[in-house]
Amino acid sequence: MSFVEIVVLAGGIGGARFLTGLKDVTRGSRITAVVNTGDDVTLHGMRICPDLDTVMYTLGGGIDPERGWGLAGETWRVKEELAAYGAEPTWFGLGDRDLATHLIRTRMLDAGYPLSQVTAALADRWQPGVDLLPMSDQRVETHVVVDDPDTGRPAAIHFQEWWVRHRAELPASGFVQVGVDDARPAPGVVEALARADAVLLAPSNPVVSVGTVLGVPGMRAALLASPGKIVAVSPIVGGGPVRGMADRCLPVVGVEVSAEGVGRHYGARTDGGLLDAWLVAPGDAADVPGVDVRQVPLLMSSPETTAALARAALEAAGV
Amino acid sequence: MSFVEIVVLAGGIGGARFLTGLKDVTRGSRITAVVNTGDDVTLHGMRICPDLDTVMYTLGGGIDPERGWGLAGETWRVKEELAAYGAEPTWFGLGDRDLATHLIRTRMLDAGYPLSQVTAALADRWQPGVDLLPMSDQRVETHVVVDDPDTGRPAAIHFQEWWVRHRAELPASGFVQVGVDDARPAPGVVEALARADAVLLAPSNPVVSVGTVLGVPGMRAALLASPGKIVAVSPIVGGGPVRGMADRCLPVVGVEVSAEGVGRHYGARTDGGLLDAWLVAPGDAADVPGVDVRQVPLLMSSPETTAALARAALEAAGV
Repeated sequence: MSFVEIVVLAGGIGGARFLTGLKDVTRGSRITAVVNTGDDVTLHGMRICPDLDTVMYTLGGGIDPERGWGLAGETWRVKEELAAYGAEPTWFGLGDRDLATHLIRTRMLDAGYPLSQVTAALADRWQPGVDLLPMSDQRVETHVVVDDPDTGRPAAIHFQEWWVRHRAELPASGFVQVGVDDARPAPGVVEALARADAVLLAPSNPVVSVGTVLGVPGMRAALLASPGKIVAVSPIVGGGPVRGMADRCLPVVGVEVSAEGVGRHYGARTDGGLLDAWLVAPGDAADVPGVDVRQVPLLMSSPETTAALARAALEAAGV
Repeated sequence: MSFVEIVVLAGGIGGARFLTGLKDVTRGSRITAVVNTGDDVTLHGMRICPDLDTVMYTLGGGIDPERGWGLAGETWRVKEELAAYGAEPTWFGLGDRDLATHLIRTRMLDAGYPLSQVTAALADRWQPGVDLLPMSDQRVETHVVVDDPDTGRPAAIHFQEWWVRHRAELPASGFVQVGVDDARPAPGVVEALARADAVLLAPSNPVVSVGTVLGVPGMRAALLASPGKIVAVSPIVGGGPVRGMADRCLPVVGVEVSAEGVGRHYGARTDGGLLDAWLVAPGDAADVPGVDVRQVPLLMSSPETTAALARAALEAAGV
């Protein structure tokens, strides 16, 4: 393959795996990862960016391969001690090794560096081999509208509380992107899209990962202005998500939990939507008018299958 | 012993051990520990109070008995990861368990709580069994004037850098208490001294521990106004410090490294100084005019010898 420039919109684990495959099959090319930061949260005084870290650790070879998030050989002493003090919250997976990342990030942010520069400084250690960008330097946080179990009235809780603490089992009635109105794409995002030979939407959550990235004002317009084809990979296989809680999120925004439902949600680029092509699993029929729908194996269970999926996405993009 | 109220001015390890002995021999009495905070330092965005923590962990049963500072069963993962990022400094002993204390303290300070209230909140877990007070809620930091090895010109470095990084081996020409002019005794200090049946100066460093506490504006006057006798324990035995680096500090302020030198440095309460009594080791002759000098075993090598020293200090105070 000749030198190409590719932009990938990504969430955490699924996005990180997809990027790994893409790196494998495009050696020498340039990949820009535009990563969801709506999951970011401040806990115990530290700014934590779960999706950025998952992508950075995965591509940099530090990830715990069993969990799919956090660092290999992790320990949990700080978390245990915080709990011993009674310091809330205790439900977040705050690893000792991981904590160094949060400490450095927090200090740099406190010193006035934008998140994109902080991310570059952290990536200098991990060498992920892609241009790792947050979707935005502005703070955007996904909150979930749930019924407060005590009062029965609607209340908004942070996405991490809904997902990690409540395992997405509290019925959600809406998602709010706190701060999104003041956000704009991080430096480099619009430029990368303007150069891109292909724009790929990773098989990440269409609502709270890819959807959050797309919700940054100016992001959709920058995608649509790209000379590259826009190809998305379905995170739904056979009526359910491969991982995560997309099945809890899609109905909240009125989207059917199916490859066809998500494909129509993204919509055709020629018809007010985004997609040129839509990759679904072999068993999933999907009729998305105006979009090149392709059935390809979607499971990223080994380096080989992951690379094959990345190759299929690039083929659909015509590069 | 009937109920008495005792105030102790203390630094880190020596002060903590002395307080342990005092607790043992005064069960049911009230002890207020006024602890040096001049060693406090902000590292990696966290506010660290080494002497307060040493006293809190020691009296609360959490201390590492081998090192004398930090928590038992400590690990160093966060420190290792910070170093892997190249984040300076790498020379400070930042333990994983210990770090939870720093995180909670930093968050509370950032939220506007004064250090005395933060200390009380932390002590609620450790239950040290004494009223644990910082010498001041205002930030006072000991800096050490040294000759910069590169330029040969005087430069001021933080006490922790001088002590932990350079093992006190860089010749010091002075100590500066940054912020001391704006400091005042923490809430409860003056009140405890006004009630005290005895005021004890622990065998801590006379310059950078006890000396720093005494340097807080209003502190000396509050001691002298106390109805209790003021008794100090020599940290110098046989011409050298039992632990620490008092031998590097005393010459800088023109004091001889001997029990007599330090006793005269503190001075007689009846003659513009502080002391009613001065406890020195059996082998140490000390002529301190106007002060009741007593030779007693000073080594705190076991609970028994530590309790015996505390008893001797109380006897010298007449309680």
